[in-house]
Amino acid sequence: MAHAERAAKALDAVREQSPLVHNITNFVSMDIAANTLLAVGASPVMAHAREEVDDIVAISRVVVINIGTLAPIWVEAMRDAASAASTSGKPWVLDPVGVGATPYRTSTARALASLRPTAIRGNASEILALAGGGEGTKGVDSSHQSDDARDAAVRLAQEVGGVVAVTGAIDYVTDGRRMLRVENGAAAMARITALGCSTSALVGAFLAVHEDPVEATTYAISLMGVCGEQGVQQSRGPGSLRVALIDALHTITPADFGRAARITEQSLIA
Amino acid sequence: MAHAERAAKALDAVREQSPLVHNITNFVSMDIAANTLLAVGASPVMAHAREEVDDIVAISRVVVINIGTLAPIWVEAMRDAASAASTSGKPWVLDPVGVGATPYRTSTARALASLRPTAIRGNASEILALAGGGEGTKGVDSSHQSDDARDAAVRLAQEVGGVVAVTGAIDYVTDGRRMLRVENGAAAMARITALGCSTSALVGAFLAVHEDPVEATTYAISLMGVCGEQGVQQSRGPGSLRVALIDALHTITPADFGRAARITEQSLIA
Amino acid sequence: MAHAERAAKALDAVREQSPLVHNITNFVSMDIAANTLLAVGASPVMAHAREEVDDIVAISRVVVINIGTLAPIWVEAMRDAASAASTSGKPWVLDPVGVGATPYRTSTARALASLRPTAIRGNASEILALAGGGEGTKGVDSSHQSDDARDAAVRLAQEVGGVVAVTGAIDYVTDGRRMLRVENGAAAMARITALGCSTSALVGAFLAVHEDPVEATTYAISLMGVCGEQGVQQSRGPGSLRVALIDALHTITPADFGRAARITEQSLIA
Repeated sequence: MAHAERAAKALDAVREQSPLVHNITNFVSMDIAANTLLAVGASPVMAHAREEVDDIVAISRVVVINIGTLAPIWVEAMRDAASAASTSGKPWVLDPVGVGATPYRTSTARALASLRPTAIRGNASEILALAGGGEGTKGVDSSHQSDDARDAAVRLAQEVGGVVAVTGAIDYVTDGRRMLRVENGAAAMARITALGCSTSALVGAFLAVHEDPVEATTYAISLMGVCGEQGVQQSRGPGSLRVALIDALHTITPADFGRAARITEQSLIA
Repeated sequence: MAHAERAAKALDAVREQSPLVHNITNFVSMDIAANTLLAVGASPVMAHAREEVDDIVAISRVVVINIGTLAPIWVEAMRDAASAASTSGKPWVLDPVGVGATPYRTSTARALASLRPTAIRGNASEILALAGGGEGTKGVDSSHQSDDARDAAVRLAQEVGGVVAVTGAIDYVTDGRRMLRVENGAAAMARITALGCSTSALVGAFLAVHEDPVEATTYAISLMGVCGEQGVQQSRGPGSLRVALIDALHTITPADFGRAARITEQSLIA
Repeated sequence: MAHAERAAKALDAVREQSPLVHNITNFVSMDIAANTLLAVGASPVMAHAREEVDDIVAISRVVVINIGTLAPIWVEAMRDAASAASTSGKPWVLDPVGVGATPYRTSTARALASLRPTAIRGNASEILALAGGGEGTKGVDSSHQSDDARDAAVRLAQEVGGVVAVTGAIDYVTDGRRMLRVENGAAAMARITALGCSTSALVGAFLAVHEDPVEATTYAISLMGVCGEQGVQQSRGPGSLRVALIDALHTITPADFGRAARITEQSLIA
């Protein structure tokens, strides 16, 4: 089956199963990440108290951890949740926002990465920093192109034993053996906050329902890009683009998504 | 006076008096709950530090407490605020988000419910869990119909000595003696995060200006539903529905609201 | 060069340089403040952990501190960030949300104001309270007109040694020597939460790229007003106004902004 069909089928499964996605995420992305999940048909839950993190993991299908506005007590909850997910064999996603920007972010992201995330999604600067080959990052926006981090992604995937996705104008997804390339999305999406975080949440939803984690990650990233492309057609700036993108996540048919997904397999020897 | 007229009058009073509504709410709903209150004409304040909670209660007309993203220090502030409201005779609302999903949520919600909220608003799973008759909940979305929780709502209202509202496709509001039924709203509203939380905030605004708490709670819930119905006419998905709903909260006239409100009195012996 | 030209040039510089703006802000405004900065062309970073605040300040061009949902650990981080900015000669902005509403807010805002902010932006009630001449405030919305706080702003600016801006129907910006008056904006903007906070974030972006702090503050405030005016033309209520305002921040040309900016120099002897 081609990626178009499999991507369509995965979206269908998200809507059919409406997986409960447990998010421990940053304050900036809470609203849009929850709305992204609801729009696509999943069921988000945001909970971070150590008093209940294990219980929430237990009822969830997948966990998404995002260090955007990290603080010590949150980091402890993230570790609890990542461990609980790993122990119970549930997929979990790490979004290492701004890793490389500060030593605290870097050490936190590395500690979480060592807990064997199913997938890591970041921009080029973040993946470079997490893989140990970066030169720092300017805040939370990437100062590198995704091509720059392609090799680092492969290295990191092999080291972590999971999927690594670099998102940008072009997206790369690898598990250290395969490499998928996505050419969806629009430059205007970079002017909306927390779309990367929302993409990571979407990756969680797809991991919950689609067995192959490289594909699940790729399809989620492609879907966000396709809906961004549709949104750009119906918007005049980042305010209306955000609205149109959320609408598109809800209204797009699996077949239309499959047709619009631009996914290609690449050789790891670039 | 019929409900249509009284509901219209209550909305008019919210706009006229612009009550200060003190919210201790979750991170996901902060933005939309504040915008809901501003759109309808009320004045929101979000504050949770124990160092000032009593002072904020003192200047507010009503307090709204929502446990969505609870954590120990927040729970302490919620207790302080609930106690301060009760002591000073101000109405307060409890939104027990996700009660039943974890022991921490359940014990927190029960402790807050024992502080005599003027009104409790939840979905069917939450009201069942809080009343002690539930079988747990799937995250924060209801896995029951509101009809299932009708009896539990009556029992809980009698036990707490306040109003209990179950919202869903059909909404029920009871104080243990009367039962009002609301048939406003649209299924599409379930695909927007924190609309339940925003409804609870709106209940706060109506409690501040309308003497009868069963009616105030009912009218707020009906208003959210009516504005959702209007929003659906002008939207293409959950992104544009959210925008249209906020617009409608601002632009709807009291008379139009009264006409669109579908509220019926029911016998408690179902 | 007239203000129209200088304002246009400042907006151009924000887009050209895309300054990294470090925000320690409240939970309600996180989303819209970040989107405001992205829409205008700046690069926001939200970070509040004491473990990394100094490092984030070090890579940022400007710091924006907003006490909206303050709590002890956040206040400590705010002090760290303000001190780090002052020490390294970077501009920083104080938004004293709700100062005067509670003793905790007042003492926190005064302590921060003593750390020599480059600019303070508040509504009339807040500036009166911070200057010591207020009679308290109703929550976070102003109960005074900006004219009432004009003299207090001058006094506060002289005391703090920085710029003080009072925003409202008319905006006043002073450094204790000059006084600029802005007549942009629309009443409907008051029905959207956290627009004041977002304006403070925008002030940060302009301070980062424009040398004269009175002008930078004035131009940022004027830009928000001009985009609000444009937004009102294309919206039906506060939901669509928010969307249109964010769009306008992105699409407005510097020349159009310059033409629409209504800025006048005033004598300090009113």
